[in-house]
Amino acid sequence: MRKIRSGTLAALFLGSILTTTPSLAAASSDSSTIREAALKDSIAWDFTEGLTTEVGPRPAGTPQEARARDWAVARLKALGFANVRAEPYTMPVWLRGHDEAHILSPFPQNLVLAALGNSASTPDKGIEGEIAYFPTLSDLEAAPDGSLKGKIAFVSHAMHATQDGSSYGYFGATRRQGPSIASKKGAIAILIRSIGTDNHRQPHTGVQMWAEGAKPIPAAALSVPDAEQLVRMVTRGQPVRLHLTLTSKMLKDQPSGNVIAEIPGSDPKAGVVVAACHLDSWDQGTGAIDDGAGCGIVAAAALQAGKAGTPRRTIRVLMAGAEEVGGNGGRAYYDAHGKEAHAMAMESDFGADRVWRVDFKLPQGHDALARRISAGLAPLGIGVSRVPAGGGSDIEPLVKAGIPVIDLQQDGSRYFDIHHTPDDTLDKIDPAQLRQNVAAWAVALFETANAPESLGVN
Amino acid sequence: MRKIRSGTLAALFLGSILTTTPSLAAASSDSSTIREAALKDSIAWDFTEGLTTEVGPRPAGTPQEARARDWAVARLKALGFANVRAEPYTMPVWLRGHDEAHILSPFPQNLVLAALGNSASTPDKGIEGEIAYFPTLSDLEAAPDGSLKGKIAFVSHAMHATQDGSSYGYFGATRRQGPSIASKKGAIAILIRSIGTDNHRQPHTGVQMWAEGAKPIPAAALSVPDAEQLVRMVTRGQPVRLHLTLTSKMLKDQPSGNVIAEIPGSDPKAGVVVAACHLDSWDQGTGAIDDGAGCGIVAAAALQAGKAGTPRRTIRVLMAGAEEVGGNGGRAYYDAHGKEAHAMAMESDFGADRVWRVDFKLPQGHDALARRISAGLAPLGIGVSRVPAGGGSDIEPLVKAGIPVIDLQQDGSRYFDIHHTPDDTLDKIDPAQLRQNVAAWAVALFETANAPESLGVN
Repeated sequence: MRKIRSGTLAALFLGSILTTTPSLAAASSDSSTIREAALKDSIAWDFTEGLTTEVGPRPAGTPQEARARDWAVARLKALGFANVRAEPYTMPVWLRGHDEAHILSPFPQNLVLAALGNSASTPDKGIEGEIAYFPTLSDLEAAPDGSLKGKIAFVSHAMHATQDGSSYGYFGATRRQGPSIASKKGAIAILIRSIGTDNHRQPHTGVQMWAEGAKPIPAAALSVPDAEQLVRMVTRGQPVRLHLTLTSKMLKDQPSGNVIAEIPGSDPKAGVVVAACHLDSWDQGTGAIDDGAGCGIVAAAALQAGKAGTPRRTIRVLMAGAEEVGGNGGRAYYDAHGKEAHAMAMESDFGADRVWRVDFKLPQGHDALARRISAGLAPLGIGVSRVPAGGGSDIEPLVKAGIPVIDLQQDGSRYFDIHHTPDDTLDKIDPAQLRQNVAAWAVALFETANAPESLGVN
Repeated sequence: MRKIRSGTLAALFLGSILTTTPSLAAASSDSSTIREAALKDSIAWDFTEGLTTEVGPRPAGTPQEARARDWAVARLKALGFANVRAEPYTMPVWLRGHDEAHILSPFPQNLVLAALGNSASTPDKGIEGEIAYFPTLSDLEAAPDGSLKGKIAFVSHAMHATQDGSSYGYFGATRRQGPSIASKKGAIAILIRSIGTDNHRQPHTGVQMWAEGAKPIPAAALSVPDAEQLVRMVTRGQPVRLHLTLTSKMLKDQPSGNVIAEIPGSDPKAGVVVAACHLDSWDQGTGAIDDGAGCGIVAAAALQAGKAGTPRRTIRVLMAGAEEVGGNGGRAYYDAHGKEAHAMAMESDFGADRVWRVDFKLPQGHDALARRISAGLAPLGIGVSRVPAGGGSDIEPLVKAGIPVIDLQQDGSRYFDIHHTPDDTLDKIDPAQLRQNVAAWAVALFETANAPESLGVN
């Protein structure tokens, strides 16, 4: 999924948009035609259905991702895109083995969990230890150094759903930082409550990186019901002993690759408009909301936007081969293409629920473009925010380089029920909301690709 | 869960109840007091929370069920019940091993599934075969004899939710009969779409019995999203080959046992009122809705009903040690107690959602009792039906012997989202609805235990 930023700096230069009633602003008639046609789109669904069915799970750097790459190249060619190709690179790969946890005492039973990305492996026969319980990440941080020696840390910090997904930024710290903190304090392993908002026995995996000086230890997420069960056990007061098996392995220099497809523009000097998503998924679901749908949306929207004829700017679909495990695809794209002129970067990686808000980060003097786009989105029920757009992992290097960004913010209210779990499957996608995404994207791509403004390019 | 009956014979003798406005009927003032106190009950929750946390999963005839038995005996004594004891018997036990399925071609990926009770075991290294797809059980039945030789049958018959749970009776046939039919037609294994109404990757297990002449074969339920994925694959037209590992074993003569606890009555000749549930659960959840909550409800309600003083009849709580795998506990109870006088049998085994309807099967001439009970239930939002009560597995031999029955029908709208899955955990229980159950049960037990009517005894 897209990186969720914390903080909400006001984008002051958008003041003039927010005081303009969208219906009074001028949206082009082409934009209306494109929007209405895109609301009948079937390409996004077919793409997502095909990728999740015919490839299924596709962890970055694995043979499954290679199949996804081949599948996407073939499908994008068949859809009529130009310059379709895979751009290979290599990356390290963490591979899940067997995940199992069993309470030894006082209440013997299994717990459902999933190792986190980059977890160290236990021996095949597992390890045993006593649980050291911390209700929040702050409690873990406050534990004296060395106090966790020989113990299995357990952090149970509940996350709640937010429409803008902002709770993931804050509570996700337990996953991102918890393992390194626990390791530095001497823990032999760490379990966290899943960074998720559901109550199903579906653990939420996800990547974490070891901080400098932190020795890798086995690290896993319990499903929410299992984390609550473990809290009930530890709060009864008796020591809780656990047997934990989390086998995994690390491979170096495995092949991955981005897939590129274009709607060529008429003015090569006007810069490229990038529409990004990622092809890889976590290993236990089929990657429908994360991020098969995003790839379906950007591919379909690029085609819809191109229906009015050759755009001024090239629309370049970027399906990153690796996002989940550290943004390798976005970096490889920037290494290969960073010196080309880019007019805009956008990314779809937050599921398939409706777009409810648009955020902009445009150069000074581009208010009229923002107004045209906002007017085209308003009939879809999309409001304009004062929050500056920030993009996500697949376009992060472009954003850091100062390329303009538009975020079509999707409703995240139920996204973290499913995110990074086995439950990320096709049936979770609402075709009507998916089509609304395609329409919003088609409007934004059409207006941006055809904008007479410079967008900072020359 | 309780057996769901098909058919809805009108209970004609209830006509006089149905034409009487409940508020005009006479509910005793004791009944009102008991109902209002029971709405504040905490015993049912504490019982369910304790059993599911401190014991967890408890398949019949296993050491976990023995722990549940010991736990229940201790808890029921602590709650002040009289004559608390375990009544042992032995039974055969089917034990799950390792369940795994992997599509070999054309779209390699894993499927999530769970073996059904009494499934044959595959070899440890699994078996391979081509899928033979049947949209419904009727399609499987129509397949020519021998046509499935060497194949893995797959029946994908979707079940939808019903408030009264009646769809389980009809669609459950795929699980109950599908394996025997497939075996007789030469299949080497069978996969069914889970008999469930959710869309999570939680397979619904459950028991099935081999029909006479049917050789046991490996049999499993795919989660609903996995069944839909397999349908998408097979309907693309290429042969689908699957590798299937379902190891399991059968043990003979394992120890199980019912737990009995009583509120002694003043009139031994008036017959016993049985309030039943079952202690065992399937192996992958913690048995919260099936049937920890039922045991919490009947225990709490018996205590609430006894608050007004010694009842006329003994209220006997029966926590059957084995229900899920064939009703062994109910039969063992009848073998031991069938010759005692029974005035009434009731069972709670359909989750913890609110009681919405009451069904009666009373002897002729007991309309006034039904009216008193209905009047006591009406303030809880419970209506009276014309459907005759039928009880469930734990009291089935009593019902067959003609003992009167009252069914407090719980809302089953979401029951089959969770039933027989790993997701059957404490968090699925709504404490307010659980208390409504206790109140309904307390009213029914109080009125029945104190009824001056004969209830067919003597």
